[in-house]
Amino acid sequence: MNAVDIIIKKRDGKALSTEEIRFFIDGYTRDEIPDYQAAAWAMAVLCKGMTEKETADLTVAMAESGETLDLDGAVHVAVDKHSTGGVGDKTTLIVQPIVTACGLAVAKMSGRGLGFSGGTIDKLESIPGIKLDLTKEEFLQQLKDHKTVLSGQSVDLAPADGKLYALRDVTGTVPAMPLIASSIMSKKIAAGTHLILLDVKVGNGAFMETLDQARTLAELMVSIGKQAGRTVKAELSDMNQPLGSAVGNILEVKEAIAFLKGEPVPHDLYDHCIESSAQLLLMGKIQPTLDECRALAISSVKDGSAFESLRKLIGLQHGDTSYIDHPEKFLLAPVIRTIFSPAKGWVKEVNARKVGETSVLLGAGREKKSDTIDHRVGILVHQKVGEYIEKGAPLFTIHANSEQDFEQAAARLAEACVLSQEKVKPLPQFYGIVE
Amino acid sequence: MNAVDIIIKKRDGKALSTEEIRFFIDGYTRDEIPDYQAAAWAMAVLCKGMTEKETADLTVAMAESGETLDLDGAVHVAVDKHSTGGVGDKTTLIVQPIVTACGLAVAKMSGRGLGFSGGTIDKLESIPGIKLDLTKEEFLQQLKDHKTVLSGQSVDLAPADGKLYALRDVTGTVPAMPLIASSIMSKKIAAGTHLILLDVKVGNGAFMETLDQARTLAELMVSIGKQAGRTVKAELSDMNQPLGSAVGNILEVKEAIAFLKGEPVPHDLYDHCIESSAQLLLMGKIQPTLDECRALAISSVKDGSAFESLRKLIGLQHGDTSYIDHPEKFLLAPVIRTIFSPAKGWVKEVNARKVGETSVLLGAGREKKSDTIDHRVGILVHQKVGEYIEKGAPLFTIHANSEQDFEQAAARLAEACVLSQEKVKPLPQFYGIVE
Repeated sequence: MNAVDIIIKKRDGKALSTEEIRFFIDGYTRDEIPDYQAAAWAMAVLCKGMTEKETADLTVAMAESGETLDLDGAVHVAVDKHSTGGVGDKTTLIVQPIVTACGLAVAKMSGRGLGFSGGTIDKLESIPGIKLDLTKEEFLQQLKDHKTVLSGQSVDLAPADGKLYALRDVTGTVPAMPLIASSIMSKKIAAGTHLILLDVKVGNGAFMETLDQARTLAELMVSIGKQAGRTVKAELSDMNQPLGSAVGNILEVKEAIAFLKGEPVPHDLYDHCIESSAQLLLMGKIQPTLDECRALAISSVKDGSAFESLRKLIGLQHGDTSYIDHPEKFLLAPVIRTIFSPAKGWVKEVNARKVGETSVLLGAGREKKSDTIDHRVGILVHQKVGEYIEKGAPLFTIHANSEQDFEQAAARLAEACVLSQEKVKPLPQFYGIVE
Repeated sequence: MNAVDIIIKKRDGKALSTEEIRFFIDGYTRDEIPDYQAAAWAMAVLCKGMTEKETADLTVAMAESGETLDLDGAVHVAVDKHSTGGVGDKTTLIVQPIVTACGLAVAKMSGRGLGFSGGTIDKLESIPGIKLDLTKEEFLQQLKDHKTVLSGQSVDLAPADGKLYALRDVTGTVPAMPLIASSIMSKKIAAGTHLILLDVKVGNGAFMETLDQARTLAELMVSIGKQAGRTVKAELSDMNQPLGSAVGNILEVKEAIAFLKGEPVPHDLYDHCIESSAQLLLMGKIQPTLDECRALAISSVKDGSAFESLRKLIGLQHGDTSYIDHPEKFLLAPVIRTIFSPAKGWVKEVNARKVGETSVLLGAGREKKSDTIDHRVGILVHQKVGEYIEKGAPLFTIHANSEQDFEQAAARLAEACVLSQEKVKPLPQFYGIVE
């Protein structure tokens, strides 16, 4: 078996065997197969595709390329929820406390944001004192003792994926479906959770811009999960407009706190979080039907137990919980100003990607990995597609670092919101479930 | 302009601009673009193809990536003949003397053999004393003074091609038509010859195994040549059986000498060399019609001027011409033995690839670049496809280094020759001309 023959086999559109994939990934992880061969192979995979079995084999090979977590010693069943990334997506901050409050153990590994898409770790770092780089031992101990834990990927899970991802980024091989699916799933499988709910976003503010792409990715990931012996479900959810109102780190944490305190939040965020929580509770067999799971999730918000669960999680990880109790303590950006609608009409578009890119411009996100972020800045989105607004209605409140940043952001956001003089239907929240 | 965007453009099947191709090739030659990006790009080219214009741009960019030769100071018109490689292909040793004798200047850069395919430089090194690593100055001076020169590629022509070829070899990207065509043509264009006759071999003993592939490659190379301002013609010739009788270095040199001395040689070799010479003479406008060119070529053999021309070329390059005059001086292999036909019938196949691979096994060729070769060993092929032979007719004479080598070769060659009890047509010599 050698690397060139494996590249040639894939180049010629043939399916690789389990052993061939393992040989290639192990060799690459150990630096025995050089980057140039991995690059040619990745391009061949992009051009010729992979079967579901090949993709599952690739995922398992990457998952087993480094340390893996075994959660069985800590809990009977642990769940994870993973979003493929979007704008204003603070659902982990809401769903994890809800399902923990309802009796499910959550072992969550999160990432940082890149480009227009935010990351949970960045958002949580808004809270003074919080520790998100748990060791493997700390992670397992907290899960065992408290049934809820959230960490950045401090353990070197699936190192082959990290190496391959960095290479794909500089060789034009990012958008290969088998490589995207195996990249996500290899980390999930290495992290050891038993039940995984995937939130595959679709729309202009997501990596998958069409429903077909999103469905293909979702089906592939569910199939990989099954072949690796995990229970996996995938939601297909809309990301054509930002989720909820807040986009930006502190702003999103505050919106999550408001949600769990039972304060009013945009209906799309509310529906999304209750539905995702209910799906997880159903997967964890906490209640026998989705309706009952939904009711349980709603009641955990109403009775304050979900909020307590957030408070507990933050406290366990050394975050200053006074910020959770008194979110007015969070720092504010120096310039906070609202822009208003120049006309009346139905909201036809609130372009998620443009909003996300503007928030990066304000300093809330990163253009490249080494950029630092400003937790205070961001955007509040006041309208949803399908709503009718009058001239002068608030469109966006911009939290900026300077007048100049505000002006730039305002000019960009003016293009993000499009009105129509004909009635526009609201966007659906979900496009389906793959299981 | 950056490398990743260029890879992505090609990956998405779009045509690259002249500037983009130049940027990529220049960057790669100067080590500014790393191997892993070039590997991904090459795989994208293999999977998505290139237009004729892109391929010509690539060829010129590679040709101009290093030194180029300007032959105008040396001769008015210089020609070159290039074969894509085959088994028993000693035509350069015959055609160059013929056309020089008929009044055309020949500036020939040749290569070494690799795999089942032989190389002119290896064959000529059979002649004691010969110098084939001319400097640029020596090459041009000999061309100017004597109108005939033959050298290995001692000048660093088209370094981008050398670098890319080595990379393609280890990344499964060898059989990309635009890369094959530009690799051959970039060296030809950098070498400065005005008229180029390409001999594109097709068959099991050639790199192009089907006529469609060979024609595509021929058309592409002719198109590249035209776009680079050269006159290029391509013959499509058969390589399903070895050309002529001799396969192996000294054996082939001796067959070439015999040809030029007017001694009998297999008709396929004779026809091929006379036809190729005539095509070159026609391109060089030595005579107005192909028939007249053919007659001139034949007479140069008959009147001994072609033989004198070979003698002169060898002498100019410090080869011991007594070997040309007395080829019986060449060293012989220790074991020379003939194998005979176990049956009667029509010869259906004399598999060129199997014969070529057996000659490599005997030591006449290289499996990898660093292997050394034995000039004495090889195979004489006694039958041609379409001939009727009796039981006991000689099939192959094996020139081996040891009894053991002989036995191994004999066993392999027994499979190379297939008889039929039904009449078999001879193989065509040529499948067409592309111009």
